[in-house]
Amino acid sequence: MDQSDIKAAPAWQLSERAIKLTSSAIREILKVTERPEVISFAGGLPAPASFPVEEMRAAADRILRDEAIGALQYSATEGYMPLREWIAARHSGNGVTIRPSQVLITTGSQQALDLIGKVLVSPGKPILVETPTYLGALQSFSLYEPSYVQVPTDESGLIPEALTPELTAGARLLYAIPNFQNPTGRRLPLERRKALAAFAQSAPFPVIEDDPYGALDYAGQPLPTLLSMAPEHIVHLGSFSKVLAPGLRVGYIIAPEDLHFKLVQAKQATDLHTPSFTQRIVYEVVKNGFLDTHIPKVRALYRDQCDAMLDSLKRNMPEGVSWNRPEGGMFVWVTLPANVDSMKLLEEAVAQNVAFVPGAPFFAEEPQHNKLRLSFVTVPPAKIEEGVSKLAALIRARL
Amino acid sequence: MDQSDIKAAPAWQLSERAIKLTSSAIREILKVTERPEVISFAGGLPAPASFPVEEMRAAADRILRDEAIGALQYSATEGYMPLREWIAARHSGNGVTIRPSQVLITTGSQQALDLIGKVLVSPGKPILVETPTYLGALQSFSLYEPSYVQVPTDESGLIPEALTPELTAGARLLYAIPNFQNPTGRRLPLERRKALAAFAQSAPFPVIEDDPYGALDYAGQPLPTLLSMAPEHIVHLGSFSKVLAPGLRVGYIIAPEDLHFKLVQAKQATDLHTPSFTQRIVYEVVKNGFLDTHIPKVRALYRDQCDAMLDSLKRNMPEGVSWNRPEGGMFVWVTLPANVDSMKLLEEAVAQNVAFVPGAPFFAEEPQHNKLRLSFVTVPPAKIEEGVSKLAALIRARL
Repeated sequence: MDQSDIKAAPAWQLSERAIKLTSSAIREILKVTERPEVISFAGGLPAPASFPVEEMRAAADRILRDEAIGALQYSATEGYMPLREWIAARHSGNGVTIRPSQVLITTGSQQALDLIGKVLVSPGKPILVETPTYLGALQSFSLYEPSYVQVPTDESGLIPEALTPELTAGARLLYAIPNFQNPTGRRLPLERRKALAAFAQSAPFPVIEDDPYGALDYAGQPLPTLLSMAPEHIVHLGSFSKVLAPGLRVGYIIAPEDLHFKLVQAKQATDLHTPSFTQRIVYEVVKNGFLDTHIPKVRALYRDQCDAMLDSLKRNMPEGVSWNRPEGGMFVWVTLPANVDSMKLLEEAVAQNVAFVPGAPFFAEEPQHNKLRLSFVTVPPAKIEEGVSKLAALIRARL
Repeated sequence: MDQSDIKAAPAWQLSERAIKLTSSAIREILKVTERPEVISFAGGLPAPASFPVEEMRAAADRILRDEAIGALQYSATEGYMPLREWIAARHSGNGVTIRPSQVLITTGSQQALDLIGKVLVSPGKPILVETPTYLGALQSFSLYEPSYVQVPTDESGLIPEALTPELTAGARLLYAIPNFQNPTGRRLPLERRKALAAFAQSAPFPVIEDDPYGALDYAGQPLPTLLSMAPEHIVHLGSFSKVLAPGLRVGYIIAPEDLHFKLVQAKQATDLHTPSFTQRIVYEVVKNGFLDTHIPKVRALYRDQCDAMLDSLKRNMPEGVSWNRPEGGMFVWVTLPANVDSMKLLEEAVAQNVAFVPGAPFFAEEPQHNKLRLSFVTVPPAKIEEGVSKLAALIRARL
């Protein structure tokens, strides 16, 4: 076979949804940032220093010693029951009971978005998203061809009063990230959570609460989840990617049983089940309270990294550049002067071995071009200073 | 929260595709067969005796000792490059070169079907399937709402001459399982493979070659894959579920690069990537030729199990019942007298603690009700005899 054979490959007719598929900016940028000389504020990668490697090694060994067949054979689509029970118990309390029968284990939280797309999103029907919102959710939902309706936000996140009958008419779902949102790092305040939970209780569609970062509040003072406020009206997505390790790809969906049942059917057609072995590793590591001591360490690490980023921004950025002070999570959201296009800035930055994610792809509609997302958890503080100082110089040159 | 709260959960509007979703007969039956007293010929589960537990245990431990960060961090959507290279090399030879850039690692072969559905299947457009075909493929593709066109088959499988311009007009793909097909156990003969490969070379759509069972030919004399005959016109699906262990959920798609690229985009939106850890375990176990000694053991085990099943059928079944003699794989396909409905037979069989899968759900259209699938790899021979003898008595009672 030679190149002429390859070129002769027929142009097969793709589905409409596949024709519309585009590669994400994050993905293309991550390719560049694999070069070790690049200071990358681009990836949403958790800090490897937080991975409990020895605990996982012991867990993997014990599982393959004592329960190998269970870990290696086909298993139930819903997931490993002891893990489902553990998740249900973790979300129960204060008068709220989440049942294991509401929990579906997913192959990472990204798969939860795909399953929700399969079961709730229809071509041309509106779905409500924050302005801006998680790029990966837009990619997942877009395969099911909804029309997007953006919900207005401010510095505190989604504005519940904006959810008027006019805006929400005909919507199939509202997708929100209340904790340390990707990309803005914002946390929805308690009063707004109450208002949003009340909205969910009367809405004819579910509010999807995507919560990968909830455990990462620096002060260790989490706000209540929407799930805890309106358990039968919220679909809650959780993940072990940020508190254990993302390479295991273990996440979950908590949903009322009738929707849960449809999600299970969709998952069965999608990948039969999440790997039995990785589910059991997660359970083995978390079952005896490991996260109670582990999460505070991750919080402290991320808080220190965030402080280093905020200090560097304050020291280096020219007037006219603003940013938020995250109370948790992995991201800070930067607003440039209106005439500075973050995509063009990225090209110049990458030439100087600094990377970030431009803000535009996080908008479902009407992208804002003077925003950018900085991830601060994996770069050592000295390198944060170097990278931010280079970015500041590039911005100054454009003023 | 009490039952009244649960009942008060709103009836959210589901997508059209979700409304059509039905639970598979296999799934419902598997629930029954979890009872230890049931002799189950139902599941497509590989024999746990074939799982190389100690090799996997050593691999898992070495990976978490030497390359933990790589195994636990986010990784490339395409998959772990050394595994992709190994797969490409395994499918190369005899003048055919498969490139690592054609290989996408999937979360089991089932996910390959979902990704093909996303990228190639459009609502109302025809796709071609064998009569009968793998139930799980029908479930996956149906989420993307094609119209099905059944390709005629006989005792040797798909009949290439039946692929007339009339039958194939407007089709987006042809889905075939040439080796030890699920559910019939049939293997497509060499001459038909040549004809099907030639068809693929001129067809304006891809032929999907699903090949989970190819390594399991009892005589160790595999027939060439369609991929090897028309590498730029075939999309080949492979799996480690039947030669290593299904609980790891590691499969793959080999496709021409332009389609590969679209499949990667779809997978990114679907689950970001297959777990890094399980991919590395598979690579660690197979990289030094382990399968060359392991697969012959699995073949011998399955051949002996198949012989036990065929002997039991011959000893017990009344006249008017027929079945094929598989040359490999996990299934035998039984034809009952025309007036015996295998779904009703199943109800009676389960009451006597014997299970199988009725044939009807394997037909995309016009289900045949006097067929059933027997899986023989996990039941000890004495139990095979007991189960077949009970089935035979039930059939005899209906004659």
